[in-house]
Amino acid sequence: MPYFIGIDIGGTNIESGIIGDNYRIFNRKSTPTFVHEGKERVLDRICGLIQELIEENPLDSIKGIGIGSAGVINIEDGIIVTSPNFPDWKNVPLKDIIFKKFGIETILDNDANVVIFGEYLVGAAKGASSLIGLTLGTGVGGAIILDGKIWHGCEGMAGEIGHMTIYPDGHKCGCGNFGCLEAYASAKAIVNQARERISHISKNSVYKLAGVEDLSELTAAHIYKAAIGGDELAIGVLSKVGEYLGLALGSLTNIFNPDMIIIGGGVINAWDFFYSSLINEVKKRAFSRPAERVKILPAKLGKDAGIIGAAGLVARSAFF
Amino acid sequence: MPYFIGIDIGGTNIESGIIGDNYRIFNRKSTPTFVHEGKERVLDRICGLIQELIEENPLDSIKGIGIGSAGVINIEDGIIVTSPNFPDWKNVPLKDIIFKKFGIETILDNDANVVIFGEYLVGAAKGASSLIGLTLGTGVGGAIILDGKIWHGCEGMAGEIGHMTIYPDGHKCGCGNFGCLEAYASAKAIVNQARERISHISKNSVYKLAGVEDLSELTAAHIYKAAIGGDELAIGVLSKVGEYLGLALGSLTNIFNPDMIIIGGGVINAWDFFYSSLINEVKKRAFSRPAERVKILPAKLGKDAGIIGAAGLVARSAFF
Repeated sequence: MPYFIGIDIGGTNIESGIIGDNYRIFNRKSTPTFVHEGKERVLDRICGLIQELIEENPLDSIKGIGIGSAGVINIEDGIIVTSPNFPDWKNVPLKDIIFKKFGIETILDNDANVVIFGEYLVGAAKGASSLIGLTLGTGVGGAIILDGKIWHGCEGMAGEIGHMTIYPDGHKCGCGNFGCLEAYASAKAIVNQARERISHISKNSVYKLAGVEDLSELTAAHIYKAAIGGDELAIGVLSKVGEYLGLALGSLTNIFNPDMIIIGGGVINAWDFFYSSLINEVKKRAFSRPAERVKILPAKLGKDAGIIGAAGLVARSAFF
Repeated sequence: MPYFIGIDIGGTNIESGIIGDNYRIFNRKSTPTFVHEGKERVLDRICGLIQELIEENPLDSIKGIGIGSAGVINIEDGIIVTSPNFPDWKNVPLKDIIFKKFGIETILDNDANVVIFGEYLVGAAKGASSLIGLTLGTGVGGAIILDGKIWHGCEGMAGEIGHMTIYPDGHKCGCGNFGCLEAYASAKAIVNQARERISHISKNSVYKLAGVEDLSELTAAHIYKAAIGGDELAIGVLSKVGEYLGLALGSLTNIFNPDMIIIGGGVINAWDFFYSSLINEVKKRAFSRPAERVKILPAKLGKDAGIIGAAGLVARSAFF
């Protein structure tokens, strides 16, 4: 039987593995990305991982390599046009680089697309007929899967759900626009919202919330931890994030009438703190039938999703 | 060669026609809807039109009947679940009624879907690979055409672009939500915005703008006429409508990365008064590559679009 390599290139780590039957990962490798060492060294590490996986797979030959990366991707030609993770990468023809080195069919896609495609293949969204996916991390990624296929749009840039405008005169977003979902629901946005609330109230709350005196050290994980501990400020911030998400998802429910919406990324640890305000907002915003129909669920494959999705994409293209 | 009947059931008129080669309409009939006469009489008039078209078509047999109607449509079963045009219609199995009477394959779809599909087949969106359509009328309808097919969603309710939330705390919409695009860009919303501005300024403007003393008589057509005459209030209202539309279309550009966006409905007479603010807003909101790529154009088939689109839908299903 055929095997495929899946690679998820993140800003911190490069995750990789071989997948076989039923999209099971049976050889998993990870290495730090070390972005600061520059493009060539990162490319070397990606190729090194692939080389190791090929060598350690005596069972059968590798039929394809799927790669997910953050950034603006030219899907058709397999080029990373720009990437927030790699400021020094401009128009890197990653697909060609990998194909020339290994002679194996290679596919490159956006990181949110491969993560949500992984969830669609064997994770929380298995069996969905139409699926909207969000990944909540440093940014807010998005993916659209319709009738089993990722909707890429006419230039491969579709699915930028993090850059829907939810508040026209709202917070400035990294993309330059004001009021994007990403400016309200990314890990960074969550931290900003907590900081702002903290600055309005007693300093005691800072210690309680973050266990740190310096607000610049505050992370979304601290806020989640504080919420578990019953901190009202943290609970309030996360509930508000649910409302922001629900606002966008309500519109998406009316636009797509999807079967499922999947939310992934580290922030979903705090699911229980934001889900009820999220679903209330969706019900308030969307027509009742699509709102009742859509299942909104947390992703469940964690870091495996990107590897499975990337490998799954190339596996599908090899067989269909 | 085969012929198909297309019918567009509106709140004021029922438009119909036979289409043949190249989606050309060669027998066109229209009758007032007279909603107030009740469901049975309206159904009789629809059947009467079909009967006349069949009898007057000696060339060849009719192979299918396509029907577009406003409202919540159960596409699969061909049922009008509810319709804003017909308060007394609940779960009307229109497809079955027509099929049983004429024994000809019948398809029922949403009015905005058939109108935009008509524009896709032979109108402003001919040749588009991916297309978002808006119809600006009493309400704001929407349609999504991806790879040549209408995206219906898992229950046939997709494409409700008029019910994207653009201002979370904004005007109340007819659907019950606050801040929907429809509450800012429908003909009714345009009139409301003009009324509000008029009430803040001198009464003279009322005469100038509408040619009527009673604001309750004001229509979107009056506002368009006043804008042509150089009335600043009217020009300001239409420019603001462009901004509202651009706000929604900017998000949709990031979500779909579409090839084209088509805007239809009576309000597009005022295209020159709202296009520049619309496109400015799209460029401000969306990523630059998708924003530069997407063509945003007015529909060009007028009342023929619905007939052609409805007939085209059943023609496609008969041949593919």
